[in-house]
Amino acid sequence: MLSFESDYIEGAHEKILERLINTNLERLSGYGSDVYCESAKEKIKAACECPKAEIFFISGGTQTNQIVISSLLSSYEGVIAAKTGHISAHEAGAIEYSGHKVLEVPQKDGKLEASELKKYLIDFYADANHEHMVAPGMVYVSHPTEYGTLYSQEELSNISQICREYKIPLYLDGARLSYAIMSEKSDLSLPMIAELCDVFYIGGTKVGALCGEALVFTKNNMPKHFLTIVKQHGALLAKGRLLGIQFDTLFSDNLYFKIGKKADKLAAMLKKAFVDRGYRLFIDSYTNQQFIILHNSDMERLSQNVRFSFWEKYDSEHTVVRFATSFATTEQDIKELEKYL
Amino acid sequence: MLSFESDYIEGAHEKILERLINTNLERLSGYGSDVYCESAKEKIKAACECPKAEIFFISGGTQTNQIVISSLLSSYEGVIAAKTGHISAHEAGAIEYSGHKVLEVPQKDGKLEASELKKYLIDFYADANHEHMVAPGMVYVSHPTEYGTLYSQEELSNISQICREYKIPLYLDGARLSYAIMSEKSDLSLPMIAELCDVFYIGGTKVGALCGEALVFTKNNMPKHFLTIVKQHGALLAKGRLLGIQFDTLFSDNLYFKIGKKADKLAAMLKKAFVDRGYRLFIDSYTNQQFIILHNSDMERLSQNVRFSFWEKYDSEHTVVRFATSFATTEQDIKELEKYL
Amino acid sequence: MLSFESDYIEGAHEKILERLINTNLERLSGYGSDVYCESAKEKIKAACECPKAEIFFISGGTQTNQIVISSLLSSYEGVIAAKTGHISAHEAGAIEYSGHKVLEVPQKDGKLEASELKKYLIDFYADANHEHMVAPGMVYVSHPTEYGTLYSQEELSNISQICREYKIPLYLDGARLSYAIMSEKSDLSLPMIAELCDVFYIGGTKVGALCGEALVFTKNNMPKHFLTIVKQHGALLAKGRLLGIQFDTLFSDNLYFKIGKKADKLAAMLKKAFVDRGYRLFIDSYTNQQFIILHNSDMERLSQNVRFSFWEKYDSEHTVVRFATSFATTEQDIKELEKYL
Amino acid sequence: MLSFESDYIEGAHEKILERLINTNLERLSGYGSDVYCESAKEKIKAACECPKAEIFFISGGTQTNQIVISSLLSSYEGVIAAKTGHISAHEAGAIEYSGHKVLEVPQKDGKLEASELKKYLIDFYADANHEHMVAPGMVYVSHPTEYGTLYSQEELSNISQICREYKIPLYLDGARLSYAIMSEKSDLSLPMIAELCDVFYIGGTKVGALCGEALVFTKNNMPKHFLTIVKQHGALLAKGRLLGIQFDTLFSDNLYFKIGKKADKLAAMLKKAFVDRGYRLFIDSYTNQQFIILHNSDMERLSQNVRFSFWEKYDSEHTVVRFATSFATTEQDIKELEKYL
Repeated sequence: MLSFESDYIEGAHEKILERLINTNLERLSGYGSDVYCESAKEKIKAACECPKAEIFFISGGTQTNQIVISSLLSSYEGVIAAKTGHISAHEAGAIEYSGHKVLEVPQKDGKLEASELKKYLIDFYADANHEHMVAPGMVYVSHPTEYGTLYSQEELSNISQICREYKIPLYLDGARLSYAIMSEKSDLSLPMIAELCDVFYIGGTKVGALCGEALVFTKNNMPKHFLTIVKQHGALLAKGRLLGIQFDTLFSDNLYFKIGKKADKLAAMLKKAFVDRGYRLFIDSYTNQQFIILHNSDMERLSQNVRFSFWEKYDSEHTVVRFATSFATTEQDIKELEKYL
Repeated sequence: MLSFESDYIEGAHEKILERLINTNLERLSGYGSDVYCESAKEKIKAACECPKAEIFFISGGTQTNQIVISSLLSSYEGVIAAKTGHISAHEAGAIEYSGHKVLEVPQKDGKLEASELKKYLIDFYADANHEHMVAPGMVYVSHPTEYGTLYSQEELSNISQICREYKIPLYLDGARLSYAIMSEKSDLSLPMIAELCDVFYIGGTKVGALCGEALVFTKNNMPKHFLTIVKQHGALLAKGRLLGIQFDTLFSDNLYFKIGKKADKLAAMLKKAFVDRGYRLFIDSYTNQQFIILHNSDMERLSQNVRFSFWEKYDSEHTVVRFATSFATTEQDIKELEKYL
Repeated sequence: MLSFESDYIEGAHEKILERLINTNLERLSGYGSDVYCESAKEKIKAACECPKAEIFFISGGTQTNQIVISSLLSSYEGVIAAKTGHISAHEAGAIEYSGHKVLEVPQKDGKLEASELKKYLIDFYADANHEHMVAPGMVYVSHPTEYGTLYSQEELSNISQICREYKIPLYLDGARLSYAIMSEKSDLSLPMIAELCDVFYIGGTKVGALCGEALVFTKNNMPKHFLTIVKQHGALLAKGRLLGIQFDTLFSDNLYFKIGKKADKLAAMLKKAFVDRGYRLFIDSYTNQQFIILHNSDMERLSQNVRFSFWEKYDSEHTVVRFATSFATTEQDIKELEKYL
Repeated sequence: MLSFESDYIEGAHEKILERLINTNLERLSGYGSDVYCESAKEKIKAACECPKAEIFFISGGTQTNQIVISSLLSSYEGVIAAKTGHISAHEAGAIEYSGHKVLEVPQKDGKLEASELKKYLIDFYADANHEHMVAPGMVYVSHPTEYGTLYSQEELSNISQICREYKIPLYLDGARLSYAIMSEKSDLSLPMIAELCDVFYIGGTKVGALCGEALVFTKNNMPKHFLTIVKQHGALLAKGRLLGIQFDTLFSDNLYFKIGKKADKLAAMLKKAFVDRGYRLFIDSYTNQQFIILHNSDMERLSQNVRFSFWEKYDSEHTVVRFATSFATTEQDIKELEKYL
């Protein structure tokens, strides 16, 4: 069945599969100490233009968020995030499970605004009782956001500057980073992100890998004994090669960026298909996720031929739904969708 | 110096001190197994008209909240509270430290409204992704609230009914319970609270004790091996008598209620003193905490003779401050305050 | 280089890779809700002869141990394990990180003995202070053990019976389960294990998969909302298919068992090669891991041509080293090894 | 009834009660910011001859242990302790609840031996897999031990030196510190302990206070925002004066030391009473706890007139029991006991 349900409905990019096959019987040491992990790290450092970057591969996004946040925060600190941030809403309390409060601030179009961040920090330190409160110890942003929107270079710079002023790290969740960087509206490159953020991750799972995220510490700030910390979270794969080989492939011949660019382009076609037919957008996204407001009867009808994601109720008669493109989406898919609109 | 800084600026009610002296050399077993703990429990059960109540004494409020919430919730559950609830804002992340998210909902006059609670629960279960979210597993209210306001019998009944419909326990933080029950505006008695709530605590620290809260499980729902759980939190006093003797005294001759009544009455006098002189109330409280809006110059001047608590900024020229009465406040104190207004 | 370093030095069994390729572009829902996960679960239930089994796929062993143990224990409970158990020694404190103590008891040949278990339980409940101690809430065994040794049917039955008497679950860590079941010395089948244990996992990572373990609850005892719990630990793969497809393949045509049988047979050849040449065994293993005592000079010399694992110091002149076979080991490998002995 | 059940069966030393009464109506700020806490800290610094010491008052021992250990350790670290250490055995898993493993080593007479400590550390770093293990991040000793025994100056110096060599803090649990320092066999003074340890606590609960322990950081090593950390553990008393006043009294006129000296002396008389009548000692203690081996029939008979603590089974016919003296024990009590022997 035609499906735009998410960007993780297919397996892996064919080049990744090929590479897994070709290296399959090589005998490599475990836990990420193999040559492919090493090679992938070098390629990522180069792509980030950040030679001193320290990189660790982890299998999934929630796990990465939990490990980064809990290992960088002191026990009495929490992490500031937009109320719609993935860690705030959709990680089943993984951050709290590790002992830390997510300090939720209002969002706009899924984004944390520098002005809201500044206000939060000023208010916190002005509060006479702040020693009885959770101290803000980190800032979390997702790029693109959970609504497919993008931070501009100016917006991220402003946030970064506030973080430096308050001496707290800025962490960027790049589960879908390729779709952000390759968006026609993006003015933020990978090296800029590496410069502005203290730590971020380059998402693989949602960009053509079977699983895996590349966590990048940019300021000589990887916690000591990080491998032990990852192990303690149950997140250290014995066959670390699985992640190394995938990222080594994604960062060869710009594959990571090509996947994003193509999916963004198809998402733009998909958006146009809706807009041309008078459907309303919930938000104007320029990445691989598109949020459409459907009349409930249209939603019902369409769902007989196409799979997509329920997002949220809009009003009593309308629903917001999400269509996502991926590495495996084709122009043919969009054309087929158009037939049902 | 004249002080209305809080209701914990003095030691203990004289009857408590007397009792500690008179029992001092009795040789009693430790960890709450002594006769005074037993006697205090019986008196509290009687006062609650809840013969099946199970009671445990703990030294402080944040500790009680952490132990109750973490022991009644499943790991994947969080606790719903008003954004201004003590556990949301002023316990330094003690709930998150124990692994659970505080699910903050909007408040009105410091209270959680039944309508907001219902909306939260309906939205949660309507969300297609709710298995990826923190499940609401308990409702927390404070009575009186952090702003000195009170739930009416109707309001608490409505909240209780929703909790029963969703099969989640209702927990009431009664750090200042006496001041609520004895308020002229209260229509909620201790037995009603025991009936409507699944668990609550009767605060001692802020009602004339040196320390100590009486935790009451009303529905045969005290977690198994609760003593071990309390010990694991580091909260089991070796000399459990210290808590037992104090609560046995507070629940003899209605002392607990007399303390609340007197402090409420003096707080009403204090409020009148301000209102009569044209000062504005931030909120109209009928308990022992009064929140006044002072011009910053008035605040400055007054603070030279009287201690009170900064609460929050009101606007650029005004500040909200708190005046609290306690077991030890006298009419003379109010008269002296009036001289400075 | 010839390597017997571990059973996770190669990628995946070729049939698994084929299957990943053949299903790669099928569009499947995420988080384990796909048809391959369903199919794999049915096959595992059949192999366990346990129709009511509840199964969940998780990427690695430490993660599985942490999730099982923390979700089945009450907060005040710990898990009993042999001092050499994987959770006791080599999981970087993952169990303690989740809040629970590993209650270590003496081991014999890497095994927990029923008599030691019984003694621990009797002593615990005889202790007048046991309410101040961590209650034993689960028993953990690994089969085969960390030393490649096996529980007999009688031994596991005795342990199981004690667990039932004390009403605590028995959990079996089967990271290398195939090598146990298919050992020439084994009298424990998969259905027997499912009968005797309350929960266990069937290891994939070390038996030919890229990653993945199949967690089996056998007594209608999977914790409620287990998917949410797994997500909260950061352990829910978006592309759950990766695990489903692998286990569906492993449990087709007895592949899982064939892998174990072959590796055990090659390990026996390897053992014989050493024994025939007068080398001493540290322990007499009948599974895929062999522990040899090497003179340090032999170890040095051998390591120039063959990779193996340092295990522990034996005495000032000797070292215990481990040789492991895997799905990819060949007879040729053993013959090549013999040349260097 | 005559009782030697523990050193926490009575209330508080009379001087403490007097002081609580005399200061009762003074209006003091909360959370430990009052003048009595300040004064007590100064007196303790002087007694420790450690002007740079940082001191915090906490209500109980288990709580203190949990807070110290979890705030000084990194997440991947554990604490080394004797198998009989209080944190190992009798704190209901409070350390593990905070995420850390207690690394148990063999004990002798309740003590951790420097040689065992050194062996543990050498073996750990020699282990090729130590990155997969819990790193030793602190050493815990109790003085006197749980068996009433004492470290000599040489023994504690040796342990301290090893800790410095490995750059890990040495933490001394002084729940009954006075009884150690004032023992006739002691050659360790309070200033020596402050010099050799990085952090320790001076127990009040078991030395004449109603509750309370004085935690002392000796090397400018109190964790940042420690008040917030204490609050997060639910351990910050609103009426901090309760602890400050008690310790200010204990450290006036050497009261803390006088209490210990007197109780030690009475314990020596008690020991002599048993020894003179041919009873066997389980261990030769020179502090306020005495461990006697009683025939079960003697135990039964004696328990009709005297209370004492069951400690552990000795053999099928004998039991180890504990007799403790306290600030309130009198010579008359010992004489009365003698009548029943």
